[in-house]
Amino acid sequence: MASIAEKFETLKTDNAPGQETRQQAANLDDVIKGETLVGRPVDFSHGDVDAFEPAPGAFETFCDGVRAGARQAYTEYRGKEEIREALAERLADFTGAPLSGARELILTPGTQGALFLTIAATVGAGDKVAIVQPDYFANRKLVQFFDGEICPVQLDYLAGTDRAGLDLDELESVFKAGAKVFVFSNPSNPTGAIYSPDEIRAIAELASRYGVTVIADQLYSRLHYSDGGPYTHLRALAGSENVVTIMGPSKTESLSGYRLGAAFGPAKLIERMERLQAIVSLRAAGYNQSVLRTWLCEPEGWLEERIRLHQAIRDDLLATFRAADGIAVRTPQAGSYLFARLPALDVSPLDFVRILRRQADVIVTPGSEFSPHTLDSMRLNFSQDHAAAKAAVERIVELVERYRT
Amino acid sequence: MASIAEKFETLKTDNAPGQETRQQAANLDDVIKGETLVGRPVDFSHGDVDAFEPAPGAFETFCDGVRAGARQAYTEYRGKEEIREALAERLADFTGAPLSGARELILTPGTQGALFLTIAATVGAGDKVAIVQPDYFANRKLVQFFDGEICPVQLDYLAGTDRAGLDLDELESVFKAGAKVFVFSNPSNPTGAIYSPDEIRAIAELASRYGVTVIADQLYSRLHYSDGGPYTHLRALAGSENVVTIMGPSKTESLSGYRLGAAFGPAKLIERMERLQAIVSLRAAGYNQSVLRTWLCEPEGWLEERIRLHQAIRDDLLATFRAADGIAVRTPQAGSYLFARLPALDVSPLDFVRILRRQADVIVTPGSEFSPHTLDSMRLNFSQDHAAAKAAVERIVELVERYRT
Repeated sequence: MASIAEKFETLKTDNAPGQETRQQAANLDDVIKGETLVGRPVDFSHGDVDAFEPAPGAFETFCDGVRAGARQAYTEYRGKEEIREALAERLADFTGAPLSGARELILTPGTQGALFLTIAATVGAGDKVAIVQPDYFANRKLVQFFDGEICPVQLDYLAGTDRAGLDLDELESVFKAGAKVFVFSNPSNPTGAIYSPDEIRAIAELASRYGVTVIADQLYSRLHYSDGGPYTHLRALAGSENVVTIMGPSKTESLSGYRLGAAFGPAKLIERMERLQAIVSLRAAGYNQSVLRTWLCEPEGWLEERIRLHQAIRDDLLATFRAADGIAVRTPQAGSYLFARLPALDVSPLDFVRILRRQADVIVTPGSEFSPHTLDSMRLNFSQDHAAAKAAVERIVELVERYRT
Repeated sequence: MASIAEKFETLKTDNAPGQETRQQAANLDDVIKGETLVGRPVDFSHGDVDAFEPAPGAFETFCDGVRAGARQAYTEYRGKEEIREALAERLADFTGAPLSGARELILTPGTQGALFLTIAATVGAGDKVAIVQPDYFANRKLVQFFDGEICPVQLDYLAGTDRAGLDLDELESVFKAGAKVFVFSNPSNPTGAIYSPDEIRAIAELASRYGVTVIADQLYSRLHYSDGGPYTHLRALAGSENVVTIMGPSKTESLSGYRLGAAFGPAKLIERMERLQAIVSLRAAGYNQSVLRTWLCEPEGWLEERIRLHQAIRDDLLATFRAADGIAVRTPQAGSYLFARLPALDVSPLDFVRILRRQADVIVTPGSEFSPHTLDSMRLNFSQDHAAAKAAVERIVELVERYRT
């Protein structure tokens, strides 16, 4: 088992999204070429909540929560009962399977909080955990933190959009070898892929056959494009026995500043997660929980318009990337992540990310955060000002040309 | 090492403060005596933020944070730099030792979040940790969660108020036996004791001699009564090398609904804690962090008035308890906890707590949460409406008389 020092070594966040201000300035002087490209700075490491503002009613509902005083400030560790009950109904509608707000749902500080509690409640020292490559970097770090053993399963996300591209044979091998837990994001972070109905059915069937608990991170499932194909909720197929679903209003709804998330699944696991939350952070901030009253019941047409605007940005960025030679990118079917594979360059991928920051005022998240096999890729969260994002991707492409081998 | 199921068994929260609504109704019919005592319900398990409202300016500053948009919603994992820098100055002033906001401070979701990260960053599997009995229940649970080994050290808090009553010989034995970490609350939760300058000096000296990291939970150190004697900040005595201090605005300032806390100590440990926070909850909610702009710089006289009002409640409750035969209680020197030891009763201590709820509409936290040696005690958070608290303690005393052996 890893010593505490080794454990924290694996948790390095130097290249994590949003933490770029704390990076040591690398010496790029030997590799840098040409002039700076002038343009409005864009931070693609996360969405811009100034460009896409928080969903309507959130702030007002927060204020109501503060005014409610003590009964909103202190809630059960799993979250205020009345909010859970109402939210459970809407989550059941959205995911297509019944849900008990009393027993099967916990409110957390962000979806990150939900993911942490779920992994903590299911992964013990030495437990094998199936992890998709590429996938959200915290999945891997959390398993390492709890001394689990990572069993990678490849996602061939560039092969086409009729399926996400999960290697189901590899998944079965890993399950056969004794994996206890499978964690994956759907839509996929960073690729924007949606798992096909067949893939979800296969996951459900394999999990049930081998007794594996599946953690489905569905954070981005609402931002579903008109050409994205069908979205299948695992919990609706698999029954609720061995599936924990994670969602939250931080992305599509731009409510990240409130740190709210939700995990729902078997009562026994939710119970464990509540016990742990009691010593991790007590609860999602009481006043903030109030904001969930507006979630999944926004004004008519609001979500559709948000999807339409994101789809338009997506299409512009895809066209810009694809006009260049040798940049490979899958069309995101949901969410606001786009994962672009670059051609061979004269500089290392991490140096290129730093060059983008210095010469183009553009921040992206390096592919190395998501898989050891995607070093030559970069993730962009395109929930940004449309024109600024388009201009920034033009600058990226110009620098790809400049540094191309 | 504990299995994951065993681990979560130790985390039971059935009797934890504020979670009483989820307790199964125990069958008290066989032991209950006499009639219900009518009175305004009081929940002593936590402070009443309707009776003592959030510190001035908090809400307005939150609203400013929301208006600031993206730059307040997304911050570094350790918290927004400008807020950390300003807060570090005020924390340095308050604790009497310099502090770098850039390197030595992390903002967390509540002080519970700070405590979790600190224990996680210092306690590995098998590590011995010195824990005071009685002390805040999460200390023990956190050590168990990380598979540490608890080494209890007794606090003879009823012996007088010239010192907290820590058994320093026992502390040294535990350090000698290889303890790596010592965690304690000062002022003490649940007893309200302040550690004397001599005790703090001894802790600093022993920690330095045996190379022990000390976690000082000073959550309640601002609510310091005029007759409470001197308060000594360990970090001012011990240097910053092996001390992590934890504070937050949830109690004295009634800002619990915003879930904000702070840990400050050696840069290397704060760095670890930030890495972990990145996978636990990302950050304290961005908008909420804004509220810390008002902390430790409230309007002149505000803190003094809050102390005066709490001291008056304290004195009334102490007088009521002490007028009864056989109830032992130390005069709290700081904070709003009061820990009362009851005489022998005809019912078990946990049943008596349930009887208080049923027959007196009063919620208290049972002594079993704080130490295996304080089953016959109960903790009251007296940050309540003054008259309601006094009447509730009169009902408690009446029921003590009714159930006395």
